[in-house]
Amino acid sequence: MPRDTASSLNTRRRRNALALPARAGGGTGAVLALERRLLAWLLRMAGTPPMNLCLWDGSLVGPAQAEHTVTLRDRAALYALLRNPNMAFGDLYASGRLRVSGRLDDFLTRLYPCLERGRQSQPAWLAALWRDRAPKGASEQDARLNIHHHYDLGNAFYRLWLDTAAMQYTCAYFEQPDFTLEQAQLAKLEHVCRKLRLRPGQTVVEAGCGWGGLARYMARYYGVRVQAFNISGEQITWAREQARREGLDDRVTYIEDDYRNIGTGAASQRCDAFVSVGMLEHVGPENYQALSAAIRRVLAPTGIGLIHTIGRNRPAPINGWIERRIFPGSYVPSPVELMRLFEDGGFSVLDVENLRLHYADTLRHWHDRFQAHREQIRADYDDTFVRAWELYLAGSTAAFQAGTLQLFQVVFAPADSNVVPRHRRDLYVGSALEAGGARHE
Amino acid sequence: MPRDTASSLNTRRRRNALALPARAGGGTGAVLALERRLLAWLLRMAGTPPMNLCLWDGSLVGPAQAEHTVTLRDRAALYALLRNPNMAFGDLYASGRLRVSGRLDDFLTRLYPCLERGRQSQPAWLAALWRDRAPKGASEQDARLNIHHHYDLGNAFYRLWLDTAAMQYTCAYFEQPDFTLEQAQLAKLEHVCRKLRLRPGQTVVEAGCGWGGLARYMARYYGVRVQAFNISGEQITWAREQARREGLDDRVTYIEDDYRNIGTGAASQRCDAFVSVGMLEHVGPENYQALSAAIRRVLAPTGIGLIHTIGRNRPAPINGWIERRIFPGSYVPSPVELMRLFEDGGFSVLDVENLRLHYADTLRHWHDRFQAHREQIRADYDDTFVRAWELYLAGSTAAFQAGTLQLFQVVFAPADSNVVPRHRRDLYVGSALEAGGARHE
Repeated sequence: MPRDTASSLNTRRRRNALALPARAGGGTGAVLALERRLLAWLLRMAGTPPMNLCLWDGSLVGPAQAEHTVTLRDRAALYALLRNPNMAFGDLYASGRLRVSGRLDDFLTRLYPCLERGRQSQPAWLAALWRDRAPKGASEQDARLNIHHHYDLGNAFYRLWLDTAAMQYTCAYFEQPDFTLEQAQLAKLEHVCRKLRLRPGQTVVEAGCGWGGLARYMARYYGVRVQAFNISGEQITWAREQARREGLDDRVTYIEDDYRNIGTGAASQRCDAFVSVGMLEHVGPENYQALSAAIRRVLAPTGIGLIHTIGRNRPAPINGWIERRIFPGSYVPSPVELMRLFEDGGFSVLDVENLRLHYADTLRHWHDRFQAHREQIRADYDDTFVRAWELYLAGSTAAFQAGTLQLFQVVFAPADSNVVPRHRRDLYVGSALEAGGARHE
Repeated sequence: MPRDTASSLNTRRRRNALALPARAGGGTGAVLALERRLLAWLLRMAGTPPMNLCLWDGSLVGPAQAEHTVTLRDRAALYALLRNPNMAFGDLYASGRLRVSGRLDDFLTRLYPCLERGRQSQPAWLAALWRDRAPKGASEQDARLNIHHHYDLGNAFYRLWLDTAAMQYTCAYFEQPDFTLEQAQLAKLEHVCRKLRLRPGQTVVEAGCGWGGLARYMARYYGVRVQAFNISGEQITWAREQARREGLDDRVTYIEDDYRNIGTGAASQRCDAFVSVGMLEHVGPENYQALSAAIRRVLAPTGIGLIHTIGRNRPAPINGWIERRIFPGSYVPSPVELMRLFEDGGFSVLDVENLRLHYADTLRHWHDRFQAHREQIRADYDDTFVRAWELYLAGSTAAFQAGTLQLFQVVFAPADSNVVPRHRRDLYVGSALEAGGARHE
């Protein structure tokens, strides 16, 4: 355990308390016939998932036998669910007023396709009442607050359950199904480097570098120089220290600045490769033009770029509870929305790979490691925080497993460049993991 | 030379005469000062390509020394170019009233980026006057006429210059740069089969099967049963005969019908794979929903699909001369337009590969083989036909080389299917060519 854990976790504690409704809901008296009918209707509107409801008086709504039982502990929880089922489910779960039997990720994986079917038969007024709303694209100031809310929860917290190899908080690449999380994250870094066709001596600009693991990997194994941008102060601090520790600080520069300022400095030079892994989710479609303009400014005419992002099959806002409580300001694009970034930016799309099921696997690892440190996290934060994060990790696992979310890696080049890879065979020469490992020796 | 060549070529001759303006333009007297200024302006509006103009009186417009010289043989050619430079260039070239020094594909490869730059500085009224117009999506009846116009030119004609291995009239896959056209077309077929992850005993539906080479390859080397649709009567006849000759007619059924009727028959069954190589160009965005509906009808819930199509980096109509004279009704999509097909169809996009430069290489082979048979084709058709086709092949080479056109292969699955490939390593196990060859023995 690193020296800074306890103090760091305690410092974050107040700052990141989830804004939840008061714990005790009103009323736990006998369930009314009307309330039972309302709950039966709610289950139908949710696409009749394989579950029943156990109410505060011990009575059941739905089939007597069901795969999962959701328990509502007070009457107010019922009315909260009716008003806004998505927000209420998350908040009630986090506060402990709603409980789910069995594995939460299994339940949600079954639930999500039902909700999708349910939505298709909901009356328009109800769909409008219940629908999630997309946030506006974040200004630089809002972006700082949004990123601070999530990524500055404390490096020690993330170290408890992310991989120890490269501290990656993005989709791993399970080249072999039995890879450990560490192996899969290294394989992801290698896969990204190969897609960029990096060569020694080249320069790379990275937007949204997290704790800087990719930048250090590129510098160490590919001999490139990297400028890596991020607006999370905690992450940048950690990344710089780590680069110093690994003797890479002469080749990797971490810059605490917004992606919109990439390539605006008087001394800024064109780079051979641009890469962004897991940042686009925080950019918002309103700002895609600002991002593509930044890439145009900084990428050499013969350069190559890669954007790795969560996406969807069709446009829709992110789950409202996730957007409000976990990732403020986030939005993930459909293929059409994503391609607009490259079209408007004057790029040619060379390669798109969908790694959806790899993210479900990644999230299962994170969820299990989070569970293994549950008591420590509860002591440092609180029960509500732990339950909210369990829901977020299980819900995200379910979303990738059920196909609600996708994971796209897009390789692109300036539209008029002919310095583009002819095929992709070179991505698969030798295992991605062994390559990194071999270079490591 | 196949038995049917001469009669077949002669039968097509009248039917496919290009509709061109009368050969002799008005006036070959001395060039006026105003006309010289107009031509200098025209060159500026075309983005100042590395060329000069030699006029009918022997005088030059543009630099004295230039990489290419374009000769205008009469005054009317000048005014035709001013009215509609794109259409006029094609028609004047085909009729011999406009000539280009040096290799035509080299000239056009230099010209296209200039035109792109030129367009950006043209006044709006001029851009509106000169712009190409996208055709309406073709009805079933129009589609038959459009396809007939091009693909029923005579099988013997296409056999003169397409590959002899599989008679492929779509982008080949030059896995190795020194592949022959035959090798590259077989490698393309293998690459497509691998992307579909075909297994023996599966069923495949193909939309727009050309001369049926892919269908026969899948049946022979992958042991699948194929239903292949096409509305070109000439191609279907040839494909059926070839399947009989190869003993594959028990596994491959060629159906002369529109893609819109796929999966509508009472006895129609779900297939494991859907594939369409080089048909989408003739569908038109207005009909993408009809196509995706057909795929939804016919593809099993755990099936996989592939669409291979010419595309663009940004939306624009196809070159007007090509659309009017060569490929009536054609339109090639940008990534956004292409992705809309999959979003609206309820599919998840798994993999996109851009093979643009492979199409430039393919077209160079076709162009060279066409040239080698120039005299025979001229005897069977006429000089205008030969020159129009030279321009079409050289112009297409240039368009792929300059990045005006792209080539996308998209792999997709029903949005809720988890039976999707985890990675793409299996596409690259052994050479695509050797695999086919080895199975062939």
